[in-house]
Amino acid sequence: MPVTQALITLNPLESVPLVEQVVTGIKQLVEQRVLRAGTRLPSIRDFAVQHGISRFTVVDAYDRLVALGYLLSRRGSGFYVASLAKAEETAPQATFLERADDVLWLLHNTFRDVPDVVRPGCGWLPSDWLDEKVIQKSLHELSRKSGAFLTAYGDVSGYLPLRQQLSQKNLTDIGISADTQQIIMTNGASHGLDLVARLFIQPGDVVLVDDPGYYTLFGYLKSLGARLIGVPRLVNGPDITVLQQHLETYKPKLFFTNTVLHNPTGTSTSAAIAHQLLQLAEKFGLYIVEDDIYGDFHSQHATRLAALDQLNRVIYVSSYSKTISASMRVGFIACHRELAMRLLDLKLLTGLTTSEINQRIMYQILVEGRYRKHIEKIRTLLEIKRGQVIRDLEACGLHIHAEPAGGMFVWAQLADERNAAEVATVASKQNIMLAPGNLFRPYQEPSSWLRFNVAHCDEPRIFALLSSL
Amino acid sequence: MPVTQALITLNPLESVPLVEQVVTGIKQLVEQRVLRAGTRLPSIRDFAVQHGISRFTVVDAYDRLVALGYLLSRRGSGFYVASLAKAEETAPQATFLERADDVLWLLHNTFRDVPDVVRPGCGWLPSDWLDEKVIQKSLHELSRKSGAFLTAYGDVSGYLPLRQQLSQKNLTDIGISADTQQIIMTNGASHGLDLVARLFIQPGDVVLVDDPGYYTLFGYLKSLGARLIGVPRLVNGPDITVLQQHLETYKPKLFFTNTVLHNPTGTSTSAAIAHQLLQLAEKFGLYIVEDDIYGDFHSQHATRLAALDQLNRVIYVSSYSKTISASMRVGFIACHRELAMRLLDLKLLTGLTTSEINQRIMYQILVEGRYRKHIEKIRTLLEIKRGQVIRDLEACGLHIHAEPAGGMFVWAQLADERNAAEVATVASKQNIMLAPGNLFRPYQEPSSWLRFNVAHCDEPRIFALLSSL
Repeated sequence: MPVTQALITLNPLESVPLVEQVVTGIKQLVEQRVLRAGTRLPSIRDFAVQHGISRFTVVDAYDRLVALGYLLSRRGSGFYVASLAKAEETAPQATFLERADDVLWLLHNTFRDVPDVVRPGCGWLPSDWLDEKVIQKSLHELSRKSGAFLTAYGDVSGYLPLRQQLSQKNLTDIGISADTQQIIMTNGASHGLDLVARLFIQPGDVVLVDDPGYYTLFGYLKSLGARLIGVPRLVNGPDITVLQQHLETYKPKLFFTNTVLHNPTGTSTSAAIAHQLLQLAEKFGLYIVEDDIYGDFHSQHATRLAALDQLNRVIYVSSYSKTISASMRVGFIACHRELAMRLLDLKLLTGLTTSEINQRIMYQILVEGRYRKHIEKIRTLLEIKRGQVIRDLEACGLHIHAEPAGGMFVWAQLADERNAAEVATVASKQNIMLAPGNLFRPYQEPSSWLRFNVAHCDEPRIFALLSSL
Repeated sequence: MPVTQALITLNPLESVPLVEQVVTGIKQLVEQRVLRAGTRLPSIRDFAVQHGISRFTVVDAYDRLVALGYLLSRRGSGFYVASLAKAEETAPQATFLERADDVLWLLHNTFRDVPDVVRPGCGWLPSDWLDEKVIQKSLHELSRKSGAFLTAYGDVSGYLPLRQQLSQKNLTDIGISADTQQIIMTNGASHGLDLVARLFIQPGDVVLVDDPGYYTLFGYLKSLGARLIGVPRLVNGPDITVLQQHLETYKPKLFFTNTVLHNPTGTSTSAAIAHQLLQLAEKFGLYIVEDDIYGDFHSQHATRLAALDQLNRVIYVSSYSKTISASMRVGFIACHRELAMRLLDLKLLTGLTTSEINQRIMYQILVEGRYRKHIEKIRTLLEIKRGQVIRDLEACGLHIHAEPAGGMFVWAQLADERNAAEVATVASKQNIMLAPGNLFRPYQEPSSWLRFNVAHCDEPRIFALLSSL
């Protein structure tokens, strides 16, 4: 019998909340040394199932016990009983980081460059696809200019000509009207998402996310104490029926979504779904954070939520990290003017300004047409690769979710609904880094899907492995 | 009689906490339309005095009423009754930003460049003092290099050669031992302070700060819900007697301090005070955030807390924004290895990496000795200016706190303990932006002191004004 089930009795009818019953129960077992230091606790799911309670209750209780020093969370492994000395220590307890443990482990691994590893699960383009010369040329031009931009803090909102360029050209091109005061430059889209989330989210808030969706975002939102509720991603966008149910049940303030070339499925939200989504947002007072970092990879005109809604309830976040250079850390937020004022306050208070040097490099790349040319080249390359990879995956017996209209991701399901995490473990032993679907689910729920980055699928051993399954 | 005193009766003996009594009292007055929309509430201090309660209670109550939509906070002006329609709105309530209102107003003004305004109150060096050519040269060299650094995310901790340079040379030179894993590059020191504060501070936590001290930090810490307790700054560093009392009373986790060339007083903590401070930190489990952004302006050897403590309880935060270029946004944290791991997790989760382009520019400037030469030139210039400004201020009847051993700040007191904020208002009408002492106090308490930036004191009209008082 599982260790805690025999020892803790929960009573849902008692006036003491269940979470406190769990906390008190485990605390006593630790203090009485019934549970000894180093004992592994049941997983969150197992504990919930064993005691017939919600997983949220268990997450809350474990979090509190970690904060109190009774439990330790070990990365990717689970929760363990701490030694009692630990429970009395006063060092800061980074509970919120523990909540994001799985994602952090993954992120550290993703950013670590190990030779001889092929990475069909990688989240970005190979360096040799990104045109260094484009950046170099702008850097060179910039180095011949003098001015306070080299030494001063610069404009709090960001380099004005770049914001003008975005306002008058790049955003206009995709149907979004935003004046320069509605645009705030950020250090990549991550910084933009961080500012928006810090403004809106209080610990305990329910936040809607795409399921599957962007795992770094999930880890980050959990670190803020948010409770994630997934909105299933269908071929033409978020599942509107489920979305409506969630809005009725949880009354959330925020929904984070990729409209165009969604990560990981590669799908884009149709205009009809976008329209329904915005109607629901209006009805339920929902704000939508539209993360559009892959949009420029789309070869035709794709609908953005911000273009329909004109930044009323949509907060548009984007960057140039995926399309041309992650090193520059140039991203931006476009939103309602009043919201922009608050986000600007928050940006100023938490980090002052963003580097004008990098924003000027990006500006040069945009205005001199180098960005457009680069993107067109990448689109063509991706299209060729995508066709090949889809054929190869299908030949290996995988099922393709939907053929994407652009971008680097293909979402494919293993035959017989085989567990993707298990396959990823097998692959990693052969130095093949796959991206199993469970990673992209709000609470790492099991999945038989895998995300493939078509730009990282050149090595035949990837498909040799998949066909050998 | 003040509006609320007649209408709200508080009973400290009741079991309902005072803060809730205030909230309920004001809520009822608003709902019964006794207090009408637009009515200005007493200031926090006045309300506290009138009702004989703590200012913290009033801050809490007003914050909650703003969050509930009953009050509005207007920048730099105070709290007003909201219209009841507002109280039912579901839009996000950025309470925490309202807490930082005064600082935000000031920051926006500081960063706005208005011609014909002289800024003896400015917090940084004039652009023409900072050597654009130094940055330009490195930018030029960098533009001739190729490599993944132009396009890829780069190392999560920051550019390794720069961290090696800091570890082996710059930190070693000031007596701090930190290996490269203990150093995390940040977007300026603000980003470093933000990471540390997010790791340690929970809403309601008491945090110790220098009084007077860095106002942006105060606004930022308030936005996190921290309660600031000031440690008076004496000529040789923090007042150890008061510090000890605060440690006994509040058991705070963190103390933010400038050890070398403190902003705004220009004083540096002596080795003896540093030693006592660290003994107290050890005894009371206090962590110290040592913000050293002005240290390089010190012409002789100055003691850092991190050099005595070797990053055990000291978290060292610095940047090159004040000394050579704010535009580059290159700063760093050096701390205990375990803490560094957590801060790195937080950096990754909240913004991925920092720009390697900028870090490489800074690296070039450091290794080729350009930084050292630039700093020596600035030190000499500042020394000349400082002597002049001190003489001029004394001639106007101001009293100098202590002659600083370097840097740009001189802290001077008005004759007859005149209110500095009032003098700053008079000055602003003459397009002279002074920095009155109340700005540098945790809750903007009145002050007769002013901070002068000696690099911005060339215009005779500054001293004409001061002598006319």
